[in-house]
Amino acid sequence: MRILGIDPGLATMGWGVVDASPGKQQLVECGAVITPPDMPFPRRLHHIFTGVKELIVTYQPQEIVFEELFFAKNITTGIAVGSARGVALCACAEFDLPLYEYTPMQIKQAVTGYGKADKMQVQQMVKMMLNLPKIIRPDDAADAVAAALTHAASGRMKEQFLMK
Amino acid sequence: MRILGIDPGLATMGWGVVDASPGKQQLVECGAVITPPDMPFPRRLHHIFTGVKELIVTYQPQEIVFEELFFAKNITTGIAVGSARGVALCACAEFDLPLYEYTPMQIKQAVTGYGKADKMQVQQMVKMMLNLPKIIRPDDAADAVAAALTHAASGRMKEQFLMK
Repeated sequence: MRILGIDPGLATMGWGVVDASPGKQQLVECGAVITPPDMPFPRRLHHIFTGVKELIVTYQPQEIVFEELFFAKNITTGIAVGSARGVALCACAEFDLPLYEYTPMQIKQAVTGYGKADKMQVQQMVKMMLNLPKIIRPDDAADAVAAALTHAASGRMKEQFLMK
Repeated sequence: MRILGIDPGLATMGWGVVDASPGKQQLVECGAVITPPDMPFPRRLHHIFTGVKELIVTYQPQEIVFEELFFAKNITTGIAVGSARGVALCACAEFDLPLYEYTPMQIKQAVTGYGKADKMQVQQMVKMMLNLPKIIRPDDAADAVAAALTHAASGRMKEQFLMK
């Protein structure tokens, strides 16, 4: 099963494509959709929208997994990142694919066995699980790959469905 | 000049098309893009996205005006409405049109002369300004028309630009 993982963000939206079969996961490709801060906000959103569509067309995933947003800071940041997630979800909805979402804690738990693991621990485990020569950069791409690995390792729980 | 006004929302996104020339405004059409609560969230966003694109293709506005979001309630509502605004902005960005945004207070001030006017006062003034037989329903459509009228009455202020 081919899984596209997405770590939504406005400036940097991480993504990772993983091929998963029982007991084996392989990294196909990963990266980030970047939008510069001086680009008008609607254009940034549109760039993310077309970027996600291109990923789906290029890599033909069977399932898509989002890392759930975590709002620590303020509502303005929340709206910006929420909008970026919104256009990414909208892009996915153009295709007839199941969508899932996991919290950062679920992802840390699934990848490292510890829900409060730090970024470096997650990155090291992702590197080990996929037998990579080094850790994935940028962080957002590593997080997206971790989300895909979480989905590969989990049963399909109904409450994680975003769309049928 | 033809102006498309948009009052962003997830369940109900009001819209109104106004033809404006100096001293004269005419309502072309107004309405609302509705998404039912039982529709999966990504599909709701996609429905709004395609709805806004269809409006632009159908009515060929020269400028587009959004009512700015006002977050009174909670961050969850904010993310949902922010996502709806995000996909609407993304739809607009597919076209090469200038986008503007006004706060609810600016709209009330422009339409009624009083920044704290209530909904009914705004609706009555919109009805009078456009010489309509009755007030516009739903509320969200009336708000979108009021946003378009605000833009028709205002100079083009640079700080209201969302996109060049």
